[in-house]
Amino acid sequence: MKTINIGLVGFGTVGSGVVTLLKEQAPLLERRVGGRLRLKRIADIDLTRARGVEVDPKILTTDAREVTEDATIDIVIELIGGTTVAREVSLAALRNGKHLVTANKALLATHGLELFRVAAERRVDLGFEASVCGGIPIIRAVREGLVANRIQSISGIVNGTCNYILTKMTELGVPFAEVLKEAQAKGYAEADPSLDIDGVDAAHKLQILASIAYGGFVDFNAIHIEGIRGIDPADIQYAKDLGYRVKLLAIAKEADGEIEVRVHPTLVPEDHLLASVGGVYNAVYIVGDATGSLMFYGRGAGQMPTASAVVSDVVEIVENILHQRPSRPSHIPQIAGEGLRTKAMEEIRTCYYLRVMAADKPGVLSKVSGILGHHDISITSVIQKGRHARESVPVVMMTHEAVEGAMRKALAEIDSVDVVREKTVCLRVEEP
Amino acid sequence: MKTINIGLVGFGTVGSGVVTLLKEQAPLLERRVGGRLRLKRIADIDLTRARGVEVDPKILTTDAREVTEDATIDIVIELIGGTTVAREVSLAALRNGKHLVTANKALLATHGLELFRVAAERRVDLGFEASVCGGIPIIRAVREGLVANRIQSISGIVNGTCNYILTKMTELGVPFAEVLKEAQAKGYAEADPSLDIDGVDAAHKLQILASIAYGGFVDFNAIHIEGIRGIDPADIQYAKDLGYRVKLLAIAKEADGEIEVRVHPTLVPEDHLLASVGGVYNAVYIVGDATGSLMFYGRGAGQMPTASAVVSDVVEIVENILHQRPSRPSHIPQIAGEGLRTKAMEEIRTCYYLRVMAADKPGVLSKVSGILGHHDISITSVIQKGRHARESVPVVMMTHEAVEGAMRKALAEIDSVDVVREKTVCLRVEEP
Repeated sequence: MKTINIGLVGFGTVGSGVVTLLKEQAPLLERRVGGRLRLKRIADIDLTRARGVEVDPKILTTDAREVTEDATIDIVIELIGGTTVAREVSLAALRNGKHLVTANKALLATHGLELFRVAAERRVDLGFEASVCGGIPIIRAVREGLVANRIQSISGIVNGTCNYILTKMTELGVPFAEVLKEAQAKGYAEADPSLDIDGVDAAHKLQILASIAYGGFVDFNAIHIEGIRGIDPADIQYAKDLGYRVKLLAIAKEADGEIEVRVHPTLVPEDHLLASVGGVYNAVYIVGDATGSLMFYGRGAGQMPTASAVVSDVVEIVENILHQRPSRPSHIPQIAGEGLRTKAMEEIRTCYYLRVMAADKPGVLSKVSGILGHHDISITSVIQKGRHARESVPVVMMTHEAVEGAMRKALAEIDSVDVVREKTVCLRVEEP
Repeated sequence: MKTINIGLVGFGTVGSGVVTLLKEQAPLLERRVGGRLRLKRIADIDLTRARGVEVDPKILTTDAREVTEDATIDIVIELIGGTTVAREVSLAALRNGKHLVTANKALLATHGLELFRVAAERRVDLGFEASVCGGIPIIRAVREGLVANRIQSISGIVNGTCNYILTKMTELGVPFAEVLKEAQAKGYAEADPSLDIDGVDAAHKLQILASIAYGGFVDFNAIHIEGIRGIDPADIQYAKDLGYRVKLLAIAKEADGEIEVRVHPTLVPEDHLLASVGGVYNAVYIVGDATGSLMFYGRGAGQMPTASAVVSDVVEIVENILHQRPSRPSHIPQIAGEGLRTKAMEEIRTCYYLRVMAADKPGVLSKVSGILGHHDISITSVIQKGRHARESVPVVMMTHEAVEGAMRKALAEIDSVDVVREKTVCLRVEEP
């Protein structure tokens, strides 16, 4: 039985999971692959911390070059995180002719083009199943399973932290900050949660998904990003009353050769399957022109789900090596090809949820709806809450499909009306 | 650009879909694959029927051998259906060294071992993504995406006809026969619906899924099969009252080296994601030891979803040919390996729903629960409906986990109690 040597750089949580899987599932993997997977070297800056998995201390090193420059190593797994050292290590591995497997969405979303080009030059594989939605094999599904489809839309709940927080806010009606604190205590949110709650992590994943779905490299900076920091439990409640759930969606759509890519809190109809995706779970809802609607659901993060995805890529590469199959060059142009034309956010069309906070006086609705009408935005329903002891009362509205640019102008006008007391809340509404 | 020649046998609904996709998506596929896919020959016994897609009449033939014996054809797509002619055509294609793509679950479930052996001998690929759940890329997901997992369980809604009928029965409270008639009128059920409603089609798919998940060939005859013909709307309603939905599930589980494989109507908790899968949609819920819970959802049948899966297999094979990659022999032993040990149905453990129809007399519950207790079956809840004008009244019970064999003995005893007036309804309850 032939042995394939694997090197790991980054022996953190996911790294330990990968080591555990390669060890515990060894008989299963050997039987499935027909070869031996040998973890030859592990590099990490900290070699003292306990990892919950035993490894021969002789294979440990603090120098990543002992992995990337080891001529006997066939596959390098990069699990460092971040985009500086991870980029250097990844480039070094690829340039030394090693296949690379990474779970690093930030790295791919920002330096993917560079990495894929080097991989193509060196004719090596670059596996990144683990970079999007952890344990869900979504990359394979889009790239191979849906290859005969034009992807009409992708709508993903791709950040477990945000979904956990929104689910709890919906269930308990408590404010964002309170749930965030609880999520941090439970380990569902980082000490510095900004990458997650501000939508950046979701945008990284969207960049990768949209690039493979649309066969080109989406410019990360073209993605419109809004997080969930500003979500008020009141809006979650009004959305519920109207038959919607609030989810942070990563959305990609194609129309007329242009792609729209955006991440923002979104009202989803409560009877839509995406609305049932609760807690830390992820789900990607895809509409293909041939397949129709599909949904892929599972754990988008966590040690073992992510490790499972890393090992699935390792196995694919091992099979290629064992059977002398060249890497799949056809996958690389898909992501490293020409940049795709992205639609300006002002030009997208969607439905909207608005909450105007105004003085409880007659004529407010007439003024607001007048402004909306002037911008060609028509209202489908209004909830005007009864007279309160409070200074201002909410007027909640749902609109028909409208153009984002028009909505922005309308909002600026609405917020400058004298009886409007707070910045109007505006959330987009989608039926994926 | 190199051209790969494709032959199609079976120009029916799915066949026309495949022709449409190969035609309409040609630019997309050529760009993705880097080669030309040429439909060289189509065989069907009926060449006169309109298919909604135009083909050069010169490529049509009524003789399948003109496809399987054409030396220039690389890939044969078998879409005849059934297990007689389809088997002969498939074997002929494989024996002539052609790669085979099929959507034929009945063929694979019953003659799969023979086909995979010939494919392995001739070192050709055998693609069957379309055989399970149409447009959902579930075969790739299990075989490649979850390769590093021990699959703990698979619970699938894999027959759209049954799911449509059960969904309608649940929504409208109407009897099975009535919904079946409507489903037939809408084209969701065949004129002879038995393969679907008796659970045989679901068992075919389960045979394929379980074989790839557990790396061996599951004996189709070892699958316990119950369909939905006998489902009474009353039980759907009681299940609803208890917080459950009735779904036809195809279930595979592994424990202690033994596999249980069964298809039967099942009570699923209403807040479980599988319970939200309505209408003709399919979904497969999988628990892997590393990934945890996953669900794959989409259209399990229909012209274009199935054609999409067929073409995804064709593309994979075309890529292998273009890049001189040998077929993936490692996939074949997985399905063509030794038979798996399956657990006898009497030995499975699950929870149960029972409806005993008894004379409205005191002491019935005591007698029934006494019999259950005697067989080590304990009750978790009872709904005893109030006094009716009818001769017998229902006693609805939910049990803790029990052994099927014990339940069968208990049921025989219950049904022989003098006050029990009808055969007791017994449905299994699962929380996938």
